[in-house]
This record gives sequence, structure tokens and C-alpha cells, in this order.
Amino acid sequence: MSGIRFYNARILTMDGGFDVIDDGVLITEGERISYVGAGGSAPAGGDYSREIDCHGNLIMPGFKNAHTHSGMTFLRSLADDLPLDKWLNESIFPREAKLDDEGIYWSTKLAVMEYLTSGITACFDMYLRPYAIARATEECSFRCVQVGSMNDFSQSLELQEEWLDRLNSGSELTTYMLGYHAEYTTSRELLKGLADLAEKYKVPVWGHNSETRGEVEGCLERYGMTPTGIAEELGLFNYGGGGYHCVYLSDEDIEIFRRRDLSIVTNPGSNTKLASGIAPITRYLKEGINIGIGTDGPASNNCLDMFREMFLVTGLQKLQNKDAASMDANDVLYMATVGGAKAMRLTESDVLKAGKYADLTVIDLTKPEMQPVNNITKNLVYSGSKSDVKLTMVAGKILYEDGRYNIGEDPDIIIREVNKVVESMKEN
Amino acid sequence: MSGIRFYNARILTMDGGFDVIDDGVLITEGERISYVGAGGSAPAGGDYSREIDCHGNLIMPGFKNAHTHSGMTFLRSLADDLPLDKWLNESIFPREAKLDDEGIYWSTKLAVMEYLTSGITACFDMYLRPYAIARATEECSFRCVQVGSMNDFSQSLELQEEWLDRLNSGSELTTYMLGYHAEYTTSRELLKGLADLAEKYKVPVWGHNSETRGEVEGCLERYGMTPTGIAEELGLFNYGGGGYHCVYLSDEDIEIFRRRDLSIVTNPGSNTKLASGIAPITRYLKEGINIGIGTDGPASNNCLDMFREMFLVTGLQKLQNKDAASMDANDVLYMATVGGAKAMRLTESDVLKAGKYADLTVIDLTKPEMQPVNNITKNLVYSGSKSDVKLTMVAGKILYEDGRYNIGEDPDIIIREVNKVVESMKEN
Repeated sequence: MSGIRFYNARILTMDGGFDVIDDGVLITEGERISYVGAGGSAPAGGDYSREIDCHGNLIMPGFKNAHTHSGMTFLRSLADDLPLDKWLNESIFPREAKLDDEGIYWSTKLAVMEYLTSGITACFDMYLRPYAIARATEECSFRCVQVGSMNDFSQSLELQEEWLDRLNSGSELTTYMLGYHAEYTTSRELLKGLADLAEKYKVPVWGHNSETRGEVEGCLERYGMTPTGIAEELGLFNYGGGGYHCVYLSDEDIEIFRRRDLSIVTNPGSNTKLASGIAPITRYLKEGINIGIGTDGPASNNCLDMFREMFLVTGLQKLQNKDAASMDANDVLYMATVGGAKAMRLTESDVLKAGKYADLTVIDLTKPEMQPVNNITKNLVYSGSKSDVKLTMVAGKILYEDGRYNIGEDPDIIIREVNKVVESMKEN
Repeated sequence: MSGIRFYNARILTMDGGFDVIDDGVLITEGERISYVGAGGSAPAGGDYSREIDCHGNLIMPGFKNAHTHSGMTFLRSLADDLPLDKWLNESIFPREAKLDDEGIYWSTKLAVMEYLTSGITACFDMYLRPYAIARATEECSFRCVQVGSMNDFSQSLELQEEWLDRLNSGSELTTYMLGYHAEYTTSRELLKGLADLAEKYKVPVWGHNSETRGEVEGCLERYGMTPTGIAEELGLFNYGGGGYHCVYLSDEDIEIFRRRDLSIVTNPGSNTKLASGIAPITRYLKEGINIGIGTDGPASNNCLDMFREMFLVTGLQKLQNKDAASMDANDVLYMATVGGAKAMRLTESDVLKAGKYADLTVIDLTKPEMQPVNNITKNLVYSGSKSDVKLTMVAGKILYEDGRYNIGEDPDIIIREVNKVVESMKEN
């Protein structure tokens, strides 16, 4: 596979800082980057399958959606403005019970379409039926780190072990991590079994953690420990991992995250819409904890847009700390790219550098909200939007460009099939 | 001017409810709508300049950006992540002092470009040099309600009176309302003079009101009254009007707004980014106060996107009230269209109905975040984005369609000129 040469580009490599290369060139070779730098120093000539004049637009690392449930797109806007318990028990669970492989497959493909429009090049996906998910994302040539959502009602230790083995030995685009849905849905025995599995394979473990105040209070009543405390006691984090949401961590929890170099994935859109609260990201950052950003699923957010999440990450900190200087835009951009990649163990897809995977997005700086270019990273975080995404590339393959998809399937068919899933739920 | 016939459309007229017409037709004649309804009942034939097959996409009323400072686009991303006083005194004021007619003119045109990409068909614009603003917006064929920002340092009663006369007697696209910047920048005598002017012409008055806690405390110290209280005492609201922001209204203030049928324009993006606080919109709504939504200016938000504002209006209420059922999406959509139009006295541009101005936007329902169409209004508020806007029309003229502008000026020239403004600020 010959490569692509991008030229006449501004390039934000995120490799050790936020400086932007002007008049830059980026060259891909197969799935990887072979050159990034100033145009004047770029290798001359070459056998490229395509040369792209970027007209001064920006190339940057693709965003990493570090927590989502892609297969829930069929549920979008079916159950909003409801209290959490009604939402889950009356709208979400009964429909999920009817969901089969085909439903997950098409719903996931619809999510991938949206990720690409938002410059997202990989997702950290926690849902049901992981083979159907892998089939969908691999057919789209999209990168997906799956994670278990084992609990007392779904999945099992045996399945976790099977998926850990099989989903880490196929396509390079797919990996798998051990995970549990949450402490409040998973027995202590099952959590202990998962810790044993982590010990056996020396791998990290992830789960929803301290998303709501009620969840933490329930755990304290059950065990006299927080969700992080019990995970630590059982040895779940002996080989790393982390938590999704983490709105309500105690001082001791934070110390465990710091000491074990665990990651936190924050989901401000979902936490806002479900009225869960504001995670103290400024504090986590100060403690040196690695942070990624996730959209959560489309039933609770409802969009899968990293730009909205980035604004919310910094905006909600400013509101909570009553300080407009809280949380610099560069810190947020780091979380949305490199921080997420670290959490997902995608350290070969984190920055733009020779040898790394060519997972990147091109931002159209001629859009009105990207002008004037007083400060590119602040423009991205404070006024960026999906409409600025010109191109998204995963592993050297352009999957989205100027509104058109290249994901091996007609978008109209994906939309039609997801609507069939919705219709099938209405029957009986 | 012959009209345009949209057919094969879903139509959300907002005329008395949120029902969507399927297989709808909308016909314009000159600047106005001549027919909206089911395709089967539409008038046959006709001399149309164009017929547009909407392929099932949605036509809805254009959004009303009910508080902004369009001419500040040149300042975007120049001064973020700063405390409010540093932001104003070291970054904003010194640059604004250098701004001339040309600077305002080009900066406003850049803002209009962004409004159109977000389905916004009118703005309520408070800034300097209103003739330059009117020249910019009228040349773009964009609707603009200007409002004074008189204070002790800028503008005067004489100018207010001149603008009230001249800007209300020219193009139908431009109107003008009396306004003061804020209580804390305007002497009691000047405010009294403005109230006399309102009495003389029997017109409403607008101003920034209770945006920060400090502003209210300062006013209480000065006068023993709130900003709303002093405005009421001086008679500023005898003929209506309202306030921008209104984050910290007292019970008495709310009663004044209710009794006088004043409007509140909320600006959640700006209030978030500047750490001002969360306006209690749920309560205002319960009191029956009319509410519009504004982006505020691009120096404080930094984008001019009604979709982000709509999500924030409902999301921040859910967070503040700790209730996911707070603030239904339909209420938010009403504020962003009809509520804003009422505040701006654009009641001929509020809903889609024969006889009203053809101020509308077409939303692309085939975008991934608009699928499946389980609920159109929830999709718009919770997952809508600029990238869903297919077409924006003001007064029967298509100004934006499929990423292309029709505003009488090459977008590249607008961008180049705004960058010249930025450069000129750096000199001396």
C-alpha cells in the first residue's frame, strides 16, 4: 500500500507540546506515518497514491472517544427528560433485551459514521455482543478498543476470558480489555473472579465508577467502602485500568488512582443531561492523574461529538470553581487525544510522529468559527464543531472526507437498517 | 420576485405546537410564506423560480440569536482562560478602542456567516457603530435587530434618538431598540434620560442585567436596589423590553419581569465560559416569563452556535436542579425560535405560516446524529449541530445552502479583511 502526502498544512503534532508547524508536510506509508515536519525538510518525490493540498488547514491527531456505548444509537431520543430510574427501567432495559447481533451491528455502524464526522479515530466501547461490534467497526476500518460490561445479569468470567483472547488476536484495529459494568450491578464474588483474571493475564480492568452520589452511598452501605475502595481491596487495579465518569471520588479514591497510575474518563455531556453532577477534573489534573474524555452512549448524551465534550470539560470546571481561568484549553485538547489514547492503551495512535499509526483528522480553518486564527488550540476547544472536520483517517485510510464516507457500506443502508431495528422493537 | 416551492418535506411550523407535518409543502412569495401544509392540499402549479425536493428533511423556523455582539469576531480566542477583569481591561477594551467602521463591518460579516451555518436567521445585536453594522447585515440580506449599548463612556441620548429614528425607517431587515450597556457602567442620570426617551417614543428598553453576583452587589451598595429595581424605579421598562443574562434576579425582580411582560435572554455558553453562574431558567419559565436564547459575543463564548446553546440551556437546568426531567426539549426549542422572536419584536418571523416572513432553516435528517428519527425535537436539542444545517433562508432569500454562502461577498475576502483588522491591532 503506497502512501498519501499531505502538504501545505498547519500541523499540530501534540508530540511534547502544542506548537503548530506552519507549511508542514505529513506522509503516510501503509497504516503509519513516515514523515511529519516542515515542508522544506520533507523527503523529495515518492510514489504516493494521492497528494493532498491542505491549503493551510490543520492536521492534528484524531480524537479518542474514551467511553461510549456505540450500539445504543437505536435508542437516541426515545427516552429523554426522564428521571434516571424511569429512563433505565422503562425505556432502556426492555429494548436492550430485544437487541440481537444485527441490531448491535447496524447501530454501531451508525455511531462510527458520527465519530468520523467529529474527527474521532477510535472509541473505547462498552456494550453487549462484542463479536458483532468488532464485525461492524472492522468492516468500517475503524479502531475500537472494547471493554467488558460484565455484571450479575449479563456476560460472565468465561466470556471475558474468551473475548480477551480472541479479540486481541485478530485485526490490529480491535483490542479488548477486561471490564465490569459497575459495582452496584456486580457481586463481590464476580468482581473477585475478574481480579483473578486480571492477575492471570496481568491486564488492566475498567468499570463505571462513582457516576452518581447514590451509587457511592449504596456501596458504602453494602461494604463500608467506596466503589474504588472495594476494587482496590479485591485487586482489580493491580495491573492498571481505571474508571468511567468518576464524578464522586473520595480523597482516598484519588490517592489510589494516583498511586496506581489509573486513568479517569470524564463524560460531561452525559453527566449533565442525566443530572449526575460535575466531576472535579481540575483537581484530578492537579494530582497528575491521566484523563480521557468520552461521549458516553447516544441514549444519555445524545450526540457523539468530541467538540461539545471539550467545551463542557472546561466550561463546567469554570462554573464549578467560579473561575474563568480554570482549565486551559490545551489541557482539554490533551485529554481528548493523548490522554484518551493512554487510557485506551493506544500509545501508537496518540501523536503525529514518524512510526505512529496515521490516525488523524484535518480541520477546516476557513470555517467562520475557526477565524480569525488568533489561537488554534483555543479555537478548537471553544468554538470548534463537527462542521469543521474536513477529513478523518484511521490507520492510513481516509474514512471520511468533505461529508462523504468511505466505510465499505452505503450510509443510506446503515440508516435504513437502524430504523428497522427501531421498528422491530415496537412489535409485540 | 417569484417564489420557491419546497416539497417532500417534514415541516415543524411551531405554530401553536410541536407537531410535524409529514410530506409537507412550503411556498414562498417574495419575502413571505404563501403556503405551509400537507402536500396534498398545496396549490397546484405556479410560477416558481425554483422547486426544492427536501427528500424528507425538516423545514423549521430560523433560530433567533437574541443576544450577541457580532462585531467582536476579530477578538475570538485572543483572550481566553483569563479572569473577567483581566480579560476586559487588558485584552478587550484596548483593542475595541482601536476599532473603526471598517473593522466592525468585516467582523460583523464574519459573524453573519457563522449564524447562517447554525440556522440562525436574525440576531439581536448590541455593539458600537450601528451604521456600520447595518451596512454589513443588510448587504448580507440578514435580519438584525440592533440595540443601544449606551453608557458613561460611549454613545449618548442624542445618538440613541437618532439611531431609533433612522435605523427603523430604512431596510425592513434592520430595526433598532433603545438600550444601555449595564447599570454598573451607566449613571443614574443617563438611565433617567433613557427612560424619558422610552416615554417619548413609547418603546421598550434593553440592557445587560444581573449577569454576575458582583454586579448585583455593587448596585445594592450604590442604590439599595437591584439593577432591575432601579430600572423599574426610573421607568425604563414602562413600555416593555427586558434583560440579557439575568443570572441573579431576586424574587422582586422576577415579579417586575412577570408583571410588565418583560423578556429574559439567557446566554448559557458565555455564563459558563466566564464562570458567571447558571440562570434559573426553570423558575422563570414557571413564572410565565418569555425567554429567548443568545450566544453572547464571540470573545466570551466563543462560538455563535444555537445548537450548543440549546443543549446548555436544558443541560445546566438539569445539573442545577439535580433532576434529569428538568426542562423539556420542546420548551428549549420554543425559546430558541418563538421566544427570541417575541423578545426581538420579530413576531412576523416567528413561526412558519402563510403571511409570515420566510425566515427558515432546513435540517438534514440524514446526518448520523439526526438518526433514527425517534423524536425530531429532541434530536434537534440534544444531538443537533451546525453540521445538520442544510439551508438557511431570510425573507425568502436563500443565504446559505450545502456549505455555500449567498451573501453578496466572497467568504475568502471577509476572512482576509477580518485578519487585516487583527493585524492592524498589533501595530503601534
